[in-house]
Amino acid sequence: MSTDQFRQKAHRIALFLFFCAFTTLVNAQVITSPDKNLSMKFELTAKGEPTYQLTFKKKPVIKQSKMGIATQDVPSMLEGFKVVDTKQNTVDETWEPVMGEQKMIRNHYNELLVTLEQSEPKARHINIRFRLFNDGLGFRYEFPQQENLNYFVIEEEHTEFNLTGDHKIFWIRGDYNTNEYAYTTSKISQIPNLIEKATIDVHAQNPIDTLSVQTPSMMKTDDGLYINIHEAALVNYPAMHLNVDPVNFRMSSHLTPDAVGNKGYMQTETQSPWRTIVVSDKATDILASRLILNLNEPTKYEDVSWIKPTKYIGVWWEYFVNGKSSWAYSTETNVKLTDDFTKFTPNGRHGANNENVRRYIDFAAENGFDAVLVEGWNIGWEDWFGNWKENVFDFVTPYPDFDVKALNDYAHSKGVKLMMHHETSSSVVNYERRLDEAFTFMNKYGYDAVKTGYVGKIIPRGEQHDGQWMVNHYIYVANKAAKYKIMVNSHEAVRPTGLHRTYPNWIAQESARGTEFEAMGGLAPDHTTILPFTRLMGGPMDYTPGIFQTDMSIYGGNQRVNTTLVKQLAYYVTMYSPLQMAADLPENYERFPDAFQFIKDVAVDWDNTWVQEAEPGDYVTIARKAKGKNEWYVGGITDENSRTATINFKFLPKGKNFVATIYADAKDASWNKNPQKYTIRKVRVDSKSKLKQYIAPGGGVAVSVKEVSKDELKGLKKL
Amino acid sequence: MSTDQFRQKAHRIALFLFFCAFTTLVNAQVITSPDKNLSMKFELTAKGEPTYQLTFKKKPVIKQSKMGIATQDVPSMLEGFKVVDTKQNTVDETWEPVMGEQKMIRNHYNELLVTLEQSEPKARHINIRFRLFNDGLGFRYEFPQQENLNYFVIEEEHTEFNLTGDHKIFWIRGDYNTNEYAYTTSKISQIPNLIEKATIDVHAQNPIDTLSVQTPSMMKTDDGLYINIHEAALVNYPAMHLNVDPVNFRMSSHLTPDAVGNKGYMQTETQSPWRTIVVSDKATDILASRLILNLNEPTKYEDVSWIKPTKYIGVWWEYFVNGKSSWAYSTETNVKLTDDFTKFTPNGRHGANNENVRRYIDFAAENGFDAVLVEGWNIGWEDWFGNWKENVFDFVTPYPDFDVKALNDYAHSKGVKLMMHHETSSSVVNYERRLDEAFTFMNKYGYDAVKTGYVGKIIPRGEQHDGQWMVNHYIYVANKAAKYKIMVNSHEAVRPTGLHRTYPNWIAQESARGTEFEAMGGLAPDHTTILPFTRLMGGPMDYTPGIFQTDMSIYGGNQRVNTTLVKQLAYYVTMYSPLQMAADLPENYERFPDAFQFIKDVAVDWDNTWVQEAEPGDYVTIARKAKGKNEWYVGGITDENSRTATINFKFLPKGKNFVATIYADAKDASWNKNPQKYTIRKVRVDSKSKLKQYIAPGGGVAVSVKEVSKDELKGLKKL
Repeated sequence: MSTDQFRQKAHRIALFLFFCAFTTLVNAQVITSPDKNLSMKFELTAKGEPTYQLTFKKKPVIKQSKMGIATQDVPSMLEGFKVVDTKQNTVDETWEPVMGEQKMIRNHYNELLVTLEQSEPKARHINIRFRLFNDGLGFRYEFPQQENLNYFVIEEEHTEFNLTGDHKIFWIRGDYNTNEYAYTTSKISQIPNLIEKATIDVHAQNPIDTLSVQTPSMMKTDDGLYINIHEAALVNYPAMHLNVDPVNFRMSSHLTPDAVGNKGYMQTETQSPWRTIVVSDKATDILASRLILNLNEPTKYEDVSWIKPTKYIGVWWEYFVNGKSSWAYSTETNVKLTDDFTKFTPNGRHGANNENVRRYIDFAAENGFDAVLVEGWNIGWEDWFGNWKENVFDFVTPYPDFDVKALNDYAHSKGVKLMMHHETSSSVVNYERRLDEAFTFMNKYGYDAVKTGYVGKIIPRGEQHDGQWMVNHYIYVANKAAKYKIMVNSHEAVRPTGLHRTYPNWIAQESARGTEFEAMGGLAPDHTTILPFTRLMGGPMDYTPGIFQTDMSIYGGNQRVNTTLVKQLAYYVTMYSPLQMAADLPENYERFPDAFQFIKDVAVDWDNTWVQEAEPGDYVTIARKAKGKNEWYVGGITDENSRTATINFKFLPKGKNFVATIYADAKDASWNKNPQKYTIRKVRVDSKSKLKQYIAPGGGVAVSVKEVSKDELKGLKKL
Repeated sequence: MSTDQFRQKAHRIALFLFFCAFTTLVNAQVITSPDKNLSMKFELTAKGEPTYQLTFKKKPVIKQSKMGIATQDVPSMLEGFKVVDTKQNTVDETWEPVMGEQKMIRNHYNELLVTLEQSEPKARHINIRFRLFNDGLGFRYEFPQQENLNYFVIEEEHTEFNLTGDHKIFWIRGDYNTNEYAYTTSKISQIPNLIEKATIDVHAQNPIDTLSVQTPSMMKTDDGLYINIHEAALVNYPAMHLNVDPVNFRMSSHLTPDAVGNKGYMQTETQSPWRTIVVSDKATDILASRLILNLNEPTKYEDVSWIKPTKYIGVWWEYFVNGKSSWAYSTETNVKLTDDFTKFTPNGRHGANNENVRRYIDFAAENGFDAVLVEGWNIGWEDWFGNWKENVFDFVTPYPDFDVKALNDYAHSKGVKLMMHHETSSSVVNYERRLDEAFTFMNKYGYDAVKTGYVGKIIPRGEQHDGQWMVNHYIYVANKAAKYKIMVNSHEAVRPTGLHRTYPNWIAQESARGTEFEAMGGLAPDHTTILPFTRLMGGPMDYTPGIFQTDMSIYGGNQRVNTTLVKQLAYYVTMYSPLQMAADLPENYERFPDAFQFIKDVAVDWDNTWVQEAEPGDYVTIARKAKGKNEWYVGGITDENSRTATINFKFLPKGKNFVATIYADAKDASWNKNPQKYTIRKVRVDSKSKLKQYIAPGGGVAVSVKEVSKDELKGLKKL
């Protein structure tokens, strides 16, 4: 039994005591959040259209908004409804995730289940289930199995989000195939003028023709309300984008179509994902919300002991620094999996060669990393991209200079794992055909985690990264990987919706513009102050932080990572993931051993989290307690503006002694000047301490706190 | 080493003696067939367009016709060519198929290889390879790997077949998803007026918008020339249909598109399938042609000993006779693979139940059949069709009333195999995901053959049965099945192109309108006189003959099989397949034991074949010698008109004694009156005998000939 399951059961008894169910037939009904701050009203229009509206502290958040599903082959489910039953429940339970930002998560909501019936042309009923938490609303459509509703094809979901004004919004363009755009911050009304400029080049992109943005969509109202719209438990359904009406400030669901333009093949009994609206007047509450996780199903895995937080390095960043090394082994430009690669001329720059990989293994072992990712180990990289090629990789044949057995044996002898890399080139049917063989291969050599990649246009051709078929594929891979006790870190997949609760071996995803783009034009200094409010709402991100050599001109070219060195340290706390990379080259860490110590120390799985201060687009400061250890880590970041972070240590146990190591930007540092200038100081802290710390433009602060003996405190100043 | 490979090697020495290669740079070149009857001229137009033309006995067959490939992403390969090299070869070799119509096949042709170069915009060359046999022409495009040609996407192939006049043509409409139309016989010029009427309802059909017909396309000129256009070795390329210009009598290639409208993803070195034109002034030569097989590659399978000719019965026809039994087990209309089917209410008509299957096994064992096909054995049939459902079958879970182990054990104890059935419902990715598990399951229980089905719309959605992706899928299945020593009989797959030479475990296909349609409106009496000239040109057909109870009104309804009983016997000889079914219900065979004897006796694999008389749409009479036995079988069929078949026994060894058993229609029999009236007589025959045999309207004749001792001839009349 998983810990998750165990906790669910343990709390069920308490749970039932809170149940209060009753039935009513009125066409309007109101529920409130447990703390009464949020209120949701369900109502049918005169035409029998379902609607909902949401208020926070009596201020409207979502004005009356319609709900419904347009279908292709059966009558649509948009109007003509009457309410035939309603039920209300209260749930208050606590559960334990396999890994996470906190050891225990409280799931506390008031629920309204509305049963709607259409009598024409044939009697048919659906449910809408609302769950109102203190931190927001989740609702979904449920389609019970019934005589007149067995199969249907979705033409479009018509869920509206009628906003109350021209909010500030942090957005990327709706696109069926990529979420790797840079964010734009604007008013909703400004989106039409900005959307073309925001549509920067990304591989395999397919921007939606109509005005739309992606979720998680983060907004702020003029009177200081924070609203985040996303979805939870995206299973067997296409991902939702949001159509934008920039005049009426109405957003509405826009599902990802398949190869023939359909938006979902449904067989009852089934349901939509949850539509989520996280709301608060404090930005920190948005980051602290566990609403999306709570709306996902507990895992069904019986054994989760093999799923482990992982800190890793990799033969990876060297592929991005100009000309240093290459994924491909040879000088060929046209290769087949049946070719004999030993006959090809090596290009002399192949990164995944035995000697280089051994160097990484040595470095990982010396510095306590769990694993070494090696990209470019397998044949096929010479022409893997851009040809919509089907048999592009086989996932089991190494290049001639990569000795799978010897390297794994060497790594294991030093207590390190190699991390597998399966770039699919989005040739997904090819990947599925070879999956069992690939996972068997991993088991044979002792790999326990795989980074998957979905770069390029999907095969089956015409399908989209965000479509129902691909949504199911990612879950198929996670499920199959679990059978082999393999953890999965997917890149270029659909953005997460909390499914790491259900499939805890799907430990992280990319699904946003990550560090690699620092080597391809750079990321704006505010990018990582937005990501926690957008991409990370759905789940952990393999952002691959830790670049110390931010000025990449030393490799040639003029690329630059737009942060200070210390901001890179802070990411290990601000960007939650149980899988964290130290992405820079080993030699760069060797030049800054004192700063590198933070990366070596920092935890990646947590007992608790305190979001100290946050404003999307401006700054984020988070403190966390390491799982099972009396160690705390704090990360604070800012955008292009310097600021003073305030860190309150009241999360520390009272009456004990701690030493804090504070990694701070130098006064004359900034993301584009002196980014490697920093200070490190050790001070005494306790639960009453408060730190006011200067953060440079594009900079950050990182703090580690450890409980120490009195002796160890000697000579240290109090904060 | 396979027999095929062995024979290829054995004859290679002889082969090289015939080689005569030379090089020339002229822009026109002529080759002739070994017997000089056929002449092919290759020529470039003034614009540098490749063309070919073909004559038979100095009469034009194909007038000058252009060749070329339009591409999407690189410059097209249509014009601007010059000839930079030509080579001629002669090949004369003999090879042995694993199974076939004759033990040894002669492969004798003169070859012209033309290397064409385009200089603009970048130097690039392709080859066109022509092989001229005594029975026709094959040619293909070859794309060598080169600096300026690595990957390309085909927009359309532009191969023309400029015919000399308004030929009679036996045609079905071009359709990307089905070849199960009924044939129309007309002039080419009449196709536009007839095409809508010819577009009868077939599941998942997708008729081509433009005027087109399918291959193999059988034509007859006014002056008695027979022309058959098809293709050979369809691998990694979409199937070709033929655009029809009904005014200029010009046909041209029309490839099947994929989900996004592309027509082929090519990586050099590669090639197109062979385009084939079989020509003769004798219709019997068309049926005797082995040109398509000769243009396919020898098998690469190292062991073919497990591939065996198979005569089988099956729990199958009872699904087509009104209401008798059903594939589905329960009364449900909405099922999932995760459902517990033991909890469902049985519908009381499930065909694949233990008792019924045992009855079939007993009948098979008693009558010497190799196998019993059982359809409807596995869960999912309740709602398998019409929902474009992905997880429709799992191929390993039997219905509660089908005991896989017990039934296989029972069958094996009686020397009979069960034959597996994998209906995919065209959910092809689902099938591929489960294929290893399904084949492992077959091995476990001792199944050695599978009938696959592709009914419905393809998943990946938007792909077509005849597209490149599906073409590769069928081969993927055949190849994977071979690893498990499993034979494959595919239904609803792309029509065959001789690939059973390369993949001999792909022993038969349906891929045309077969016996099942007799239960769904009936087949025209001339249908099976056309099939050998069309569908069967590509390979063996699992036509499922042998229906004795042709008047199906005894089951209710008014369906009728439009043949006499004897015509059903004749099919075992006229419709070549190493896999032959006796499709009727056991109880119907028990009522006609004397006629049934022919089905029990007839061979399904052959040492030799003599096409005695044939006219497409009218009649076919074929004699064959059983493989490795001194037994001969003759089948003759006619269309709706009675006729007198002439069977010449000169194929028998001279100076020996034989007894012929002649199964003949009664004088007053016909397809719609007295179809079960027949006579059986035994006579003495020798190599000088000639039989003139009356065949009733819609009827046939079947003859078995065995060598006997002189004693056994006593009392028998001479023919």
